[in-house]
Amino acid sequence: MASHGEGSDAPVDPMVSQFEKHPISSILIIIAMQTEALPVVNKFQLVENPHSPFPEGVPWVHYHGTYKDITMNLVWPGKDSTLGVDSVGTVSASLVTYASILALRPDLIINAGTAGGFKARGAGIGDVFLISHVAFHDRRIPIPVFDQYGVGSRQTFSTPNLLKALNLKAGKLSTGDSLDMTPKDEESIAANDATVKDMEGAAVAYVADLLKVPAIFVKAVTDIVDGEKPTAEEFLQNLAAVTAALDEAVARIIDFIGGKCLSEL
Amino acid sequence: MASHGEGSDAPVDPMVSQFEKHPISSILIIIAMQTEALPVVNKFQLVENPHSPFPEGVPWVHYHGTYKDITMNLVWPGKDSTLGVDSVGTVSASLVTYASILALRPDLIINAGTAGGFKARGAGIGDVFLISHVAFHDRRIPIPVFDQYGVGSRQTFSTPNLLKALNLKAGKLSTGDSLDMTPKDEESIAANDATVKDMEGAAVAYVADLLKVPAIFVKAVTDIVDGEKPTAEEFLQNLAAVTAALDEAVARIIDFIGGKCLSEL
Repeated sequence: MASHGEGSDAPVDPMVSQFEKHPISSILIIIAMQTEALPVVNKFQLVENPHSPFPEGVPWVHYHGTYKDITMNLVWPGKDSTLGVDSVGTVSASLVTYASILALRPDLIINAGTAGGFKARGAGIGDVFLISHVAFHDRRIPIPVFDQYGVGSRQTFSTPNLLKALNLKAGKLSTGDSLDMTPKDEESIAANDATVKDMEGAAVAYVADLLKVPAIFVKAVTDIVDGEKPTAEEFLQNLAAVTAALDEAVARIIDFIGGKCLSEL
Repeated sequence: MASHGEGSDAPVDPMVSQFEKHPISSILIIIAMQTEALPVVNKFQLVENPHSPFPEGVPWVHYHGTYKDITMNLVWPGKDSTLGVDSVGTVSASLVTYASILALRPDLIINAGTAGGFKARGAGIGDVFLISHVAFHDRRIPIPVFDQYGVGSRQTFSTPNLLKALNLKAGKLSTGDSLDMTPKDEESIAANDATVKDMEGAAVAYVADLLKVPAIFVKAVTDIVDGEKPTAEEFLQNLAAVTAALDEAVARIIDFIGGKCLSEL
């Protein structure tokens, strides 16, 4: 058995080494809402793929292009075919993550989106967080071990250089399928030690982990959950302005990634 | 435009007609827990597919076999690879439904499982329900139209002859990712007019609808949600006995389906 932890000469898994030393050549950006996605599509001059890699019947939209030698893929789950609203939430997010990984084989996933923030934990409107951990706050299964499965806490792909270079805030994310928050949700979000809450992140992370693709999470605060205004009202008021901050952060992240290996992030 | 509703000679969509007149040749049974799945596997002498149709890394298990000229597929989402418990809930259920439909192209999906029942609405321990409608009770998005998307109410594939022949109870199902029930969940379940609650059904229905595969839902009551005992305790106490009732019902359903077309169910 190889020795470990004996300085820089310690042997490294050759597969990991080779993988991490290869410059990132393909990125998959997953964004749940059209309002959030289109500025990124425009910024990187992505075009909608006329030959969708997805099965007939699903509303998922694939945009692609090239930037700094990186194949850029952006997938938006599209509008619900019956109701016409963005297909938000964990079911839709998990499906597009799964289908996109299989079809596009990305080196790295970026899940970007808006989120609610907790001012008691330092979040303000327009803040952009790079997420260190994700968990669910609305999957309560009070049976030993199933309880941990429900919470589904996991660490995201670590990118210390990216965090430092872009001067983003770091925080933990809690995911649930509701825009509002019940007292029970609040309890679980506190147990998850979360600064921001969204409706997709932990589901994207679950699928990315299943299929062993590194994933990072960039979340911009549209509403203060522990503030005065009702979440839905504040969310809609700030959506456009905060989306601009989110998309600027995504653009800076892609710029930083260009030419680098996973291990350099 | 063809006229409708003028008696039995009214023209019928030829695609639908052809599809519905073809005897059902392939069934996909989706069952979330191993305890629920293995008796069905044994009853129909299904065997685990050594060449999994699913990608490397996922814990999903495919059993298959033949019964009365029907290709039988049973997919169980497997044990969480980190925690070792059954991969219950909507994220996992939606993923296996999606992947299984694409890989196995079933004529009909049967989602079978245990559920909580409401005695105030006529449910008793061991009752087996054939579900007429599904909806979610933990996806609250208080923005117009998004609210309906969150609830995700939909009718299941209608099987009046099956319901009558097997003398099953009919009822509506409400799905959420928690085993317990908060006051807010209870309010939503009442709004969904549900007699039983589970953790997968509405997610399976969503994906089946996306990919246009008819799906039916068979749910057996392990615990009374509006009763005296805590849900988790009652659920574990009754799981084995109720699973036997569930599996008997599934077997009777498959027997009934054998040789029939979708339109005869």
